[in-house]
Amino acid sequence: MSPEERLASLGIELPEAPAPLGSYVAAVTSGNLVFLSGMLPLSMGKLARTGKLGDSLTVEEGAGLARLAAINALAVLKAETGSLEKVKRCVRVCGYIASTPEFTQQPAVLNGASDLIAEVFGEIGRHARAAVGVSVLPLDSPVEVEFVFEVETD
Amino acid sequence: MSPEERLASLGIELPEAPAPLGSYVAAVTSGNLVFLSGMLPLSMGKLARTGKLGDSLTVEEGAGLARLAAINALAVLKAETGSLEKVKRCVRVCGYIASTPEFTQQPAVLNGASDLIAEVFGEIGRHARAAVGVSVLPLDSPVEVEFVFEVETD
Amino acid sequence: MSPEERLASLGIELPEAPAPLGSYVAAVTSGNLVFLSGMLPLSMGKLARTGKLGDSLTVEEGAGLARLAAINALAVLKAETGSLEKVKRCVRVCGYIASTPEFTQQPAVLNGASDLIAEVFGEIGRHARAAVGVSVLPLDSPVEVEFVFEVETD
Repeated sequence: MSPEERLASLGIELPEAPAPLGSYVAAVTSGNLVFLSGMLPLSMGKLARTGKLGDSLTVEEGAGLARLAAINALAVLKAETGSLEKVKRCVRVCGYIASTPEFTQQPAVLNGASDLIAEVFGEIGRHARAAVGVSVLPLDSPVEVEFVFEVETD
Repeated sequence: MSPEERLASLGIELPEAPAPLGSYVAAVTSGNLVFLSGMLPLSMGKLARTGKLGDSLTVEEGAGLARLAAINALAVLKAETGSLEKVKRCVRVCGYIASTPEFTQQPAVLNGASDLIAEVFGEIGRHARAAVGVSVLPLDSPVEVEFVFEVETD
Repeated sequence: MSPEERLASLGIELPEAPAPLGSYVAAVTSGNLVFLSGMLPLSMGKLARTGKLGDSLTVEEGAGLARLAAINALAVLKAETGSLEKVKRCVRVCGYIASTPEFTQQPAVLNGASDLIAEVFGEIGRHARAAVGVSVLPLDSPVEVEFVFEVETD
């Protein structure tokens, strides 16, 4: 199955690639690496939730939001490359998790993104990763996730 | 206009490339990517301000400091490459914004850096970007900004 | 001396490459860059310490933990490349330091990692770097360090 077919089999329809929040772009390709801007858990162009882990959100809710950020990332990646079949590897994922000072389950939250990438891309979806707890994120988003993908170049 | 001419037309004179604060260097070139160390808003080799957004600094002051960090970045980049005309693309900008837990306008702060890069480089200055709120930064700096540039190799 | 010989002369025996905490891998090679996952200060597969800088840990203890994270990174890098002699450059180090809002000596903490890399690799160990204070890290780890290395490709 192609990544697009796997998305369909998961019942996921990619949204429109989200618009940047400032004077930048959603993706830059340099050589065969695609760097994505920090992705937020947007739904219909709006944050699905606000708040912090350890406070108003459970780990499961956080993981769902990380998954949503990853879906937005795939929408941007497809807009940048034309097709997810161009992906040769998911290289790096960095997840910033808005956390109270006592919340330490950032990896379980970020798994929401990592697991989706693995479901869609299989073996080439396995990536290097950092999960970090931060005090606050843009628009009070609970999560923000950066991605670097390696793609085929023409 | 060359990037150096655009800087001059903006009335910006690049400072000396700032010295690192520890056992590392300000820039590393690998292939045609230049990775810069986290840039602080230094003026005459000292932090222009300390403190956090949401507390002692306004969004406008924060954006000015992000712009100053970007000016320091261009000084480092020029020292590394010899000329800003070598730049083919600004690839990635990651802005860490020291924030109180309630401050959520990190993108507006980081625009100070992004806008300067766009003014100096035009279309090739458009970059992927992440803006993150963090609890505290080195020397109590309000902002720290990482950059990756793609450059011509000889 | 080879990097492995320098490690031996420092009395450092590389541990087993630490297992990832989630659905990802410890290292990904893309072209001649190796991206490592965020490294924690693991000893015998467990965190050597928990807590935050500015609270329960001194700067010296934090630097020791950053050094330990770097030792784990070298174990992962060796497992990925086969030999540390494949390393052509340490490109980027990003240190996330769990900090109270008043603690501002993140660079001194991260020097524990940077200094080890310099001791093991000499001139090619000099890297671009960012040190950031964050509110909390996975498992309450005091430090987490990301690395990018450039390596020889066959």
